[in-house]
Formats: sequence, structure tokens, C-alpha cells
Amino acid sequence: MTDAVLAPGAVIGILGGGQLGRMLSVAASRLGFTTHIYEPGANPPAAQVADRVTTAAYDDADALRAFAETVDVITYEFENIPTEALDLLEPLRPIRPNRKALKVSQDRLVEKAFLTDLGLTTAPFAAVDDMEDLTEALAEIGAPAILKTRRFGYDGKGQARIMAADQAGAALADMAGAPAILEGFVEFSHEVSVIAARGLSGEIACFDPGENLHREGILRQTTVPARLSAAQRNDAVLLAARILNALDYVGVMGVELFVTPAGLVVNEIAPRVHNSGHWTQNGCTVDQFEQHIRAVTGWPLGDGQRHADVVMENLIGDDMERVPELAKTPDTALHLYGKAEVKPGRKMGHVNRVIRPTR
Amino acid sequence: MTDAVLAPGAVIGILGGGQLGRMLSVAASRLGFTTHIYEPGANPPAAQVADRVTTAAYDDADALRAFAETVDVITYEFENIPTEALDLLEPLRPIRPNRKALKVSQDRLVEKAFLTDLGLTTAPFAAVDDMEDLTEALAEIGAPAILKTRRFGYDGKGQARIMAADQAGAALADMAGAPAILEGFVEFSHEVSVIAARGLSGEIACFDPGENLHREGILRQTTVPARLSAAQRNDAVLLAARILNALDYVGVMGVELFVTPAGLVVNEIAPRVHNSGHWTQNGCTVDQFEQHIRAVTGWPLGDGQRHADVVMENLIGDDMERVPELAKTPDTALHLYGKAEVKPGRKMGHVNRVIRPTR
Repeated sequence: MTDAVLAPGAVIGILGGGQLGRMLSVAASRLGFTTHIYEPGANPPAAQVADRVTTAAYDDADALRAFAETVDVITYEFENIPTEALDLLEPLRPIRPNRKALKVSQDRLVEKAFLTDLGLTTAPFAAVDDMEDLTEALAEIGAPAILKTRRFGYDGKGQARIMAADQAGAALADMAGAPAILEGFVEFSHEVSVIAARGLSGEIACFDPGENLHREGILRQTTVPARLSAAQRNDAVLLAARILNALDYVGVMGVELFVTPAGLVVNEIAPRVHNSGHWTQNGCTVDQFEQHIRAVTGWPLGDGQRHADVVMENLIGDDMERVPELAKTPDTALHLYGKAEVKPGRKMGHVNRVIRPTR
Repeated sequence: MTDAVLAPGAVIGILGGGQLGRMLSVAASRLGFTTHIYEPGANPPAAQVADRVTTAAYDDADALRAFAETVDVITYEFENIPTEALDLLEPLRPIRPNRKALKVSQDRLVEKAFLTDLGLTTAPFAAVDDMEDLTEALAEIGAPAILKTRRFGYDGKGQARIMAADQAGAALADMAGAPAILEGFVEFSHEVSVIAARGLSGEIACFDPGENLHREGILRQTTVPARLSAAQRNDAVLLAARILNALDYVGVMGVELFVTPAGLVVNEIAPRVHNSGHWTQNGCTVDQFEQHIRAVTGWPLGDGQRHADVVMENLIGDDMERVPELAKTPDTALHLYGKAEVKPGRKMGHVNRVIRPTR
């Protein structure tokens, strides 16, 4: 291995202690790495399987500095890391994926501009800072459309649908003064996502696209294989590769795509392991979490080979009551997140139903 | 689930912090449990992925008591737990597998007597406390034979071969006064092991037997499927079930068997997850570690279904130098143990080469 490659025993710093950080930590352990979680909230899920945990805010400069000193590389499980924290950390340790990926994905407007500049198709969009912008954008894009805050949105939060122009005022009020973006509706048959990875030496590996089902803005189910033609499958991979290369990206990225008669439309990108890639835990020898760890430590990537059909279903809120039944079901792998409290809409775990080829 | 069943969020206490405790801890996290490791040595591999760690000796009554108070059930990753520690812990929390299993497997003589009482075949054996015993035992069993300490032997330690009667004195000296057992040699074609599990409600599940290859007394490789006829496969499962039922066992057990023309001969049993079951991590939806956690928490067992052929190879000492090459090999899953120091003969990790059925 070269100097750029971290050997077993190295420490991976992870910003964020949720379920993604938890599963990254487990994957890191398989390769002999330890992890240090940085998370403002108390008792995060990742802490239960991490070697070290720092409980501190993202504006705690001393804690950030102390954290950086103990780790060999820094990665993250969510994209909304405050810029000031990144400014402080970046000179101290490599941050992978890099700042550019974060900058692009933290802001829906910057992201859409980046994607269209690459020649990719997105929903029609326009920046909306005030009522004048919104009126103009609606005239151009038309209703129905969806108004979203440019930053900090996830799982359907910070979004307002505009079915007709007279709902514009209420939608804008929902943004609470935050800079927003108006997105036109895309007529699509279904949504798929590509979990793609790029290594430190620039090699790219993609997992098979999964087909996603959302309800109330939250991912419920991912099925592999997705309904895609061979040509669409190729398009999806090439498009993901174009994004990763343009960002000089290192790590795993989730790329959500709408399947339309006119081709694939990029919905959004996430510069991290992605809920729609959880099926890889039981469908691939190297899953998305290990793939991400391999990338950020400079290891060779797994090839993404899929050995089974899988249906991944999220366990949200009261779905936890189904655990005893699911535990009895053959070829069903449970992955629970160790969250103390069940809340409506809260992701508590997921289950991978594995459909094996007949032996 | 009934009262006897632990719900996600419960704490599993694990005696011993080596690689088996480490992989048990990861499996526990998948089901939403946290683990508390008890281990006398500093910086044990399991601590890197456990929620809590107690570093204390097995004769530290206060530490043992405090440990028991934080956990809902106690299990272990090795069988040589001092009796006094178990005496202290047993009234405080359920210990699974139970004391009987430990008692039997801690002493080679008790184990062999237990197995033959069950009607199973073992190597011929006799207790040896002194030279008179040894002379008598050699007259009965004949040479070559092997003299072993009754307790605390593993990976070929505490053993002396006797090729001819004139080596008896030296072999006995090797025992350093410890109670011993003389075992006759068994003519076998190969060794297999069954990783069997028994749940709290008495149900039994077995993984497919694996075929083991040892070198210098250390397991090097396990291959599934093993070379066994259908009848031998059935015998192996029935025999394992007889052992588990007789012990009212709860958890995973490793049963090592010699394959001979006259039938299966039990070599030894281990009341815990077993090195020869590591292949299940990449060959089954529910692996031996999760199976053990399911058993000791009262969950339903996985069915043991195997979905791929696997060759598991231990990475011992300098084998770690092969990691960069192994990381590049498709369908090869690395499992490293996070041990700081490479030593000759030390188990540093293992690798599962997965041979998939053609899709």
C-alpha cells in the first residue's frame, strides 16, 4: 500500500452519530480500523459500536481540534455540516468526500446548477428569495410545482407544494424567510438510485440501481433489481461517474434518479452512504458502508457485484412492533439502530428480504 | 415476545474481549442490543465495537457485581472462566450457555465421559494423574497417543505426543503436575465441525458442517460444504442435537468431529461461537454470531440456510501482509480483529472467499 493508504489500526473520524455512522463504524471494524464519532446529541446510535465518541457542538472549536488530532481521516454521515466546522477541520486532516461535494449538496440551487452544467437533466428550477421571484418562477415553470428551502431539507421537511398560483403566498410563508428554490414537477414512472463509489486513485464502482418507494416524503422500500432497460442501466452508471469525477469525489454517493420516457432525470445527490443502499448489506460481499470506508482510507474498492435480489424495507416508528414476526421469517436480515425511543416517522431500523437464486 | 425474551435496547454482558466477543458485539448491534465487555486485558479487540467495557480481573468481586448489574444476560466467548467468577455471577443474571456446558467443556476428562455416556464415540481415553496412571493408560490405549492437560488447553497448547512408551516420562513432565488425560489416536480421513444452536424454547438449528484444516494445532481453513455423505451429514446433526439437548443448552456450540470409516468420532465441543463457523458471516443471512445472540436473548433462531459455498481462511501472524492483495480480490470478505500487534501464531483476522452459484 502507498503512503496515502491507511493501514488497519488507523482511526476514522465520523461527523454524525446516527444509523449511518453506526453502520460505517461496524464496516470499519471489519477492516481493522477504529472509529471516533463526533456528535452533538447525547447517546447517539453510532456510539454503541464506536471506539471513541466526542459529544460536542459543531461550533466547539476546541472539541473539533481535539477530535481531529485523534483521527487519520475525517468523513461524515450527513451533508449539513456547518461551514465553520469544516473550515477548522480541513487544514488538520483530510476530509473525504471533499468540501466541494458538500458545498454542492448542501444547497439545492447550487446542486441543480452543478448538475445542469454537467449536461445532466434535472427538474426545471428557479431561485426564490421573495414573492417577486416566486411569481416569476411560477410563470416560467408553471404549477403544480414544489417550493423547497435551499438548505437543510431532508425526508420531506422544508417543502411546500404549490398546486395552483393562489397557494404561492402560503408556500413562501412556510419557508420562514429562508432562501428557497422552486422546482417543477417531473412526470416519472418510478425513482431509482445508484450507489456509486470513487476511490482515492480515481477508480469507480457502482452497485446495481435500486428502485425506491417513498411515502410521506420518507423512503419506505428499495428493490433490486430496479425496473430499468440495459440502456437505462448504463446511462445511470455513466451519469453517476460523471458526477463523481467532476467533484474529484472520494467515497460513496447516493444519486437519486427519476425514470422518464425522455430519459433519466437527476432528483438529488447525497455525498454519503444512502438509505437506498442498505440492501447491499445482504446482497453484496462488500456493502456500501465498507465501500465508503475502503474509499476514504485509500483501499481498493469492492466491485459492487450483486449476488441476490433484495427488498429493503425501512422500519419506521411503530414498525418496530413487527420485529418479533420479522425475526422468525427465513432469509430476512434485521438491522436495528439502537435508538432508545420510538417516534412516529423515526427510522428505527430496516430489514433486507433476500431472494436467492435457486441453487 | 414473552417475558423471557429480551427486547432491543437490552444489554448483553460478554465475558472475554477477543475477536469472538468483538464479532458477537457487532451481531448484537444489528438486533438493537448493546454489549458490555468484561475483560482483564487492556484494549481488547471487542472494546472497539462495544458500548461498555470493564477492565478487571476475574477475581475482582466488586467489578463482577457491578458488571452484572448493568446487563440483562451474561454470555462468554471462551470456556475457561474461573468457577469463582461464575459462582458470583450466576445468582445475579442468567448465564447462557449454562454452567453445565462450561463444566463439561472446561475439563477434557469430564467432556469425554459426558460424550461417551450419551452413547457417542470419542477417542479412547484415560485419566492420568501420575506415572502409574500413565503406564496403565498406555498399556490399555497403546502408542502413539497424546497426553493433554485436562484444563486450559487451546490451539495445541498443553499437549505432548507419545510416539513410544519411552517418551512417557517427558510427556508427563510437560504437564507440569497438572491433571491430564491420555487420548488414543483416531484414524480419520478428515475433520469436520457442526456449528449448532439451541434456543431458549428448545428449538435447534444447525449450520452446514464445515471441513477443517489444521496446521501446528491451529485451525487454518474451513470449507463448506464438507466432504460428507448425506447419511454422515444427518449423523452429524443428530449427534450435535443430542449434545445440546442433554446440556439443556442455550446458544451456539462448535462440535468438532473426526470422519472415520466406522462413523463420526467427537473430537471436542466448545460452548461458544467457533472459529470454524466464521464462514457463516458470508454464507448465511443469519451468521453464527447473530445466531448466538438470538439464542441467549430468547429470540427465534435463524434457520441456518447456506446460500453460497465458502472457504474461510485464518490470517495468522504475518498473513497480515497479504491484506492489500486480498482487499483487491473479488468475492472475498475480510474480517480483521483490530489487534495492535502482529505476533507469530496470533489470529489477526480471517477471510471468507465466497463461491456463488451461477445466477
